[in-house]
Amino acid sequence: MTEQPLEPPAVVRSLYAELVVTDLDRARWFWVDLLGLVVEHEGEGRLFLRGYDELTHHNLVLREGPEPAADRLAFRVASPVDLERAERFFSARGCRTRRVPAGRVPGLGDAVRVQDPLGFVVEFVHQVQTVERLHQRYDLRRGAEISRLDHFNIVVPDVPRAFAHYDSLGFRCSETIEDDDHLYAAWMYRKQTVHDIAFTSGAGPRLHHIGFFTHEAAQVLRICDVLGSLHQEHHIERGPGRHGVSNAFYVYLRDPDGHRLELYTSDYYTGDPDHPVLRWNVQDPRRRDFWGNAVIESWYREATAVRGLDGQIQPAVEAKLDESAARVGADGLGTRPAQE
Amino acid sequence: MTEQPLEPPAVVRSLYAELVVTDLDRARWFWVDLLGLVVEHEGEGRLFLRGYDELTHHNLVLREGPEPAADRLAFRVASPVDLERAERFFSARGCRTRRVPAGRVPGLGDAVRVQDPLGFVVEFVHQVQTVERLHQRYDLRRGAEISRLDHFNIVVPDVPRAFAHYDSLGFRCSETIEDDDHLYAAWMYRKQTVHDIAFTSGAGPRLHHIGFFTHEAAQVLRICDVLGSLHQEHHIERGPGRHGVSNAFYVYLRDPDGHRLELYTSDYYTGDPDHPVLRWNVQDPRRRDFWGNAVIESWYREATAVRGLDGQIQPAVEAKLDESAARVGADGLGTRPAQE
Amino acid sequence: MTEQPLEPPAVVRSLYAELVVTDLDRARWFWVDLLGLVVEHEGEGRLFLRGYDELTHHNLVLREGPEPAADRLAFRVASPVDLERAERFFSARGCRTRRVPAGRVPGLGDAVRVQDPLGFVVEFVHQVQTVERLHQRYDLRRGAEISRLDHFNIVVPDVPRAFAHYDSLGFRCSETIEDDDHLYAAWMYRKQTVHDIAFTSGAGPRLHHIGFFTHEAAQVLRICDVLGSLHQEHHIERGPGRHGVSNAFYVYLRDPDGHRLELYTSDYYTGDPDHPVLRWNVQDPRRRDFWGNAVIESWYREATAVRGLDGQIQPAVEAKLDESAARVGADGLGTRPAQE
Amino acid sequence: MTEQPLEPPAVVRSLYAELVVTDLDRARWFWVDLLGLVVEHEGEGRLFLRGYDELTHHNLVLREGPEPAADRLAFRVASPVDLERAERFFSARGCRTRRVPAGRVPGLGDAVRVQDPLGFVVEFVHQVQTVERLHQRYDLRRGAEISRLDHFNIVVPDVPRAFAHYDSLGFRCSETIEDDDHLYAAWMYRKQTVHDIAFTSGAGPRLHHIGFFTHEAAQVLRICDVLGSLHQEHHIERGPGRHGVSNAFYVYLRDPDGHRLELYTSDYYTGDPDHPVLRWNVQDPRRRDFWGNAVIESWYREATAVRGLDGQIQPAVEAKLDESAARVGADGLGTRPAQE
Repeated sequence: MTEQPLEPPAVVRSLYAELVVTDLDRARWFWVDLLGLVVEHEGEGRLFLRGYDELTHHNLVLREGPEPAADRLAFRVASPVDLERAERFFSARGCRTRRVPAGRVPGLGDAVRVQDPLGFVVEFVHQVQTVERLHQRYDLRRGAEISRLDHFNIVVPDVPRAFAHYDSLGFRCSETIEDDDHLYAAWMYRKQTVHDIAFTSGAGPRLHHIGFFTHEAAQVLRICDVLGSLHQEHHIERGPGRHGVSNAFYVYLRDPDGHRLELYTSDYYTGDPDHPVLRWNVQDPRRRDFWGNAVIESWYREATAVRGLDGQIQPAVEAKLDESAARVGADGLGTRPAQE
Repeated sequence: MTEQPLEPPAVVRSLYAELVVTDLDRARWFWVDLLGLVVEHEGEGRLFLRGYDELTHHNLVLREGPEPAADRLAFRVASPVDLERAERFFSARGCRTRRVPAGRVPGLGDAVRVQDPLGFVVEFVHQVQTVERLHQRYDLRRGAEISRLDHFNIVVPDVPRAFAHYDSLGFRCSETIEDDDHLYAAWMYRKQTVHDIAFTSGAGPRLHHIGFFTHEAAQVLRICDVLGSLHQEHHIERGPGRHGVSNAFYVYLRDPDGHRLELYTSDYYTGDPDHPVLRWNVQDPRRRDFWGNAVIESWYREATAVRGLDGQIQPAVEAKLDESAARVGADGLGTRPAQE
Repeated sequence: MTEQPLEPPAVVRSLYAELVVTDLDRARWFWVDLLGLVVEHEGEGRLFLRGYDELTHHNLVLREGPEPAADRLAFRVASPVDLERAERFFSARGCRTRRVPAGRVPGLGDAVRVQDPLGFVVEFVHQVQTVERLHQRYDLRRGAEISRLDHFNIVVPDVPRAFAHYDSLGFRCSETIEDDDHLYAAWMYRKQTVHDIAFTSGAGPRLHHIGFFTHEAAQVLRICDVLGSLHQEHHIERGPGRHGVSNAFYVYLRDPDGHRLELYTSDYYTGDPDHPVLRWNVQDPRRRDFWGNAVIESWYREATAVRGLDGQIQPAVEAKLDESAARVGADGLGTRPAQE
Repeated sequence: MTEQPLEPPAVVRSLYAELVVTDLDRARWFWVDLLGLVVEHEGEGRLFLRGYDELTHHNLVLREGPEPAADRLAFRVASPVDLERAERFFSARGCRTRRVPAGRVPGLGDAVRVQDPLGFVVEFVHQVQTVERLHQRYDLRRGAEISRLDHFNIVVPDVPRAFAHYDSLGFRCSETIEDDDHLYAAWMYRKQTVHDIAFTSGAGPRLHHIGFFTHEAAQVLRICDVLGSLHQEHHIERGPGRHGVSNAFYVYLRDPDGHRLELYTSDYYTGDPDHPVLRWNVQDPRRRDFWGNAVIESWYREATAVRGLDGQIQPAVEAKLDESAARVGADGLGTRPAQE
């Protein structure tokens, strides 16, 4: 029975993130007016947003604050008892944990927050208020027509360590970028898609991006066209393109505070019990863009600072391993034109 | 402990179907040359086919025989012990069961076949040979570019009974067609999509169709264009269109023996623990086609006979409930032009 | 020199239609709010609408009146002198003609209206006010995202006569439906597309539909999804589908007064000097739908009455030739479910 | 009457180009096996290729030779007399002209070749053999599913001079890139699309690219996916993306000899008599990519040498004006990763 306290919480999927933005009106323009996320609730300097296919109260909370940051990432768990499992699991690892009573975050039941071994505040929650699903309200769709949250991508200085942590949490691995000696990146999942969480090597802990799912590539192209129409094309950072890893069609955008999101579609089912890991060599120019288009340098370098459980920005530790350096002379990092 | 024998096998998903076709060459022309399914193996009068995203050996077996029939439907289970659970579960219901040793069906490990209470032969298998995944071999894609098996749809004379059976097998319900008094149809799933199995009311047991997943609507349109090009448009039975139920974009085709398949894309994630049932009223003209296009009469009336464990065609029992009759005068069944 | 008065006006393309609607607010809901046509001007019981790619003032005028009708169809001509050519050309055929001074129709210069030998009021105009082109305002697009007017389709009791008339007007023929003895339908053009005008055999003169161009099939599918969302799917009459004739992807909608429009995309270039006629046999089930889907009966039977130059509804003369009858037993006319 | 000899030939559209390739088998792999152009004829070291919508014998001739070059560009003219007009028009400008008898180029009637004032060999031809149109042979489509030739883009050291020349030839201008002092680029047309010819500022005469039309953006994305599948992604030079100029969706590819082609779709109708010029400022980062993605440096610098009427490679004269330099520090030219 000595192992039982370490039984991890049964994570269902990535549920929502809370981002700190410096101007809530401007953030609303970007995430709601432009991208088309649905406002489920607002108040006290916060906006609660979700995709059209979602039945859960929110996928994203935007909170106004003094400097851009990621406040926390949240996963949904399978049952109420998983909250206790989460507390025990992280306490046993020497992590601080905190109970958040039901209703403290609108739309959510009891939750447990922890500052995980990687330095991120992660919330576990089971009960989520069910809201009206708008998946057949084509009349309401606009912008990127986001269906649902798909995944989080975090920047960590030690990818193998992050991998081991999420492996112990019961996540399975779908794809990696590696070479004979190193693991540069990994994609891990609980729901039956390519990932709920992925790791990018770099100074961390930082949040690389939040991934949202759309149903078809057309929606990825359309939001780029809309941004061009409004002369807001500088919000497009990288893409659109086809990923090697995941095979998804994608684009990366930056919000007015520099928070990065990905629009992501057409990955694949991973629910079979023996689903194998697909390993990409770091030298394969198709791993990050299947068409061989150069990765934009800012995409490797820039990310969102994260807050600790105390609300303070966490210092970032430099990575020893640099995927982009492994490709210098070969990957030929691209650049976006300066913003005008 | 008396209940333990009734613990159902943990089904992962719908895995494959075996169909009897009267001319294997002609079936190959339809399923391989035209639709583009990948041939993994052939021999002894059989073809083993799969979609481009699949890692499993096959999604469809075509076997040459004297008359068209469905030989069996197969589900994958989570672990080897689920085979024993399947035996106990069905034996306790008075169903005949049979062990199939590993390798008897190419690509599969040990399996258990049962003739279930609804009259269908259903196979449960855990171990499946992993094969090369072709999801990024865009150079090989042709026809409908089928990604993977999505679901089975069966015709049963008593939908509530079929619902109860699959409910006891641990399937969850995503959507229904009903009215105050009756359940006309239901969609049930194990993997995190709208369904692995669905029930159509009618004379049964019969197989209504096999559903295959494609990544985008464009692939559904393209196979119709190809069929028109070859003056084989009579293989198109119904659609393309948008379903009300599932919100999927679809078309129904008939193979040279009249076996029906659906090409199906863009349904939604159902993996949340409290995922609710979406109930359509039988009077809503959008339930079967969101655009209100009439259902083709043959779609309600025709289906594939099924074989029992003894290899004999099972007699079909008439249904007391007729969804299309519930709509007479309103649904206005459409017709396809006669084949020329 | 005796023939010179009969030189036809040099038609550039189909420009706009004026429809009489019985409730302008309801028509506005359909054409503007739902389909997304751009309002360029309104007043005096009229709405002037156009597509996003257009530089011309309007493609459609909706005028409120006591009963649904088509008031006139308008073609643009290459130069001011073509107005005189139009007057002479039609006067020589015994047709009534009328000058309309510049500005009488907002956005238009001098125009000539004639009641043509087929019974339709046709307007010829050269000068059109240039307005802001919105082709790169993706932020404004909605509904069917109509780009421009593509063509008119008229119902005439004598297709060969209509063909001869438009041939004398300098139109070229791209495609026909015929058999050894009869011409059932024809598509004729001036701009370099499949048609500016087409003829459907039936009681006429009546207007069958107005065709609007969209850039991709996705926009045709989307408006159907929007109509389903709003439970307005009864406005969808036929399709979506792929035409045999023209190879275009299409859907036919009916407005609240029953006026029919087509959304139409992906036909082909016809500008080569020796562009040949593509002839479809009336027995080919792919001619009207390349996928062999049945033509809806109302599509053959119903059409919009047309007004004469005197503003009176023109009596319709029955056709002797019935394309749908030529196909009875074979074409198997389909039906839409009754509207609920 | 003194002006009459200078009446220009009535150009219908851009018809075909002949490229010299160093390895015909390898060129065939690229243009036929990969891109999917249709082989109409081959022999004597040449391949004659066309798109699926075409009725004309060929859009592209590939001829094996010692070094990569463009041998000539060809335009179709409206009537046989336009050949004489071409001879007189260019002779009056001091240009060498040459008659090419019917049949010398397979599929073509009599032609006139000239070395135009810009240094390019341009052929004018009226009679072209009509071949089977494959526009509804969806079963044959593969690769990029090219419909037809759309345009030529040439590199010239003096864009205003090229503009004046084609203006005198009766071409109209759809769009430009300019600033208060300079014309950097222009798009000119005869058929009713954005262009048959465009000018890029640089060392010339050289051929920048040949533009081929596809029906939808999906086909542009698909060929990139196919190239990735085959690890031939280094043939993708720039894009996919949306152009500001023309609003077309595009990608630029390079063939094994470095010849550049564009796949291009969804521009707009330009046939109205008063179609205005859309002028882009050279400082607008959306002019070349509506999403603001950086132009790849090789796209500005590299191009195909052209042969003179004598078959010799023409020396290129440096341009005084550099559009990319006008953007240094702002446009931030991107780079592709080195080919591996």
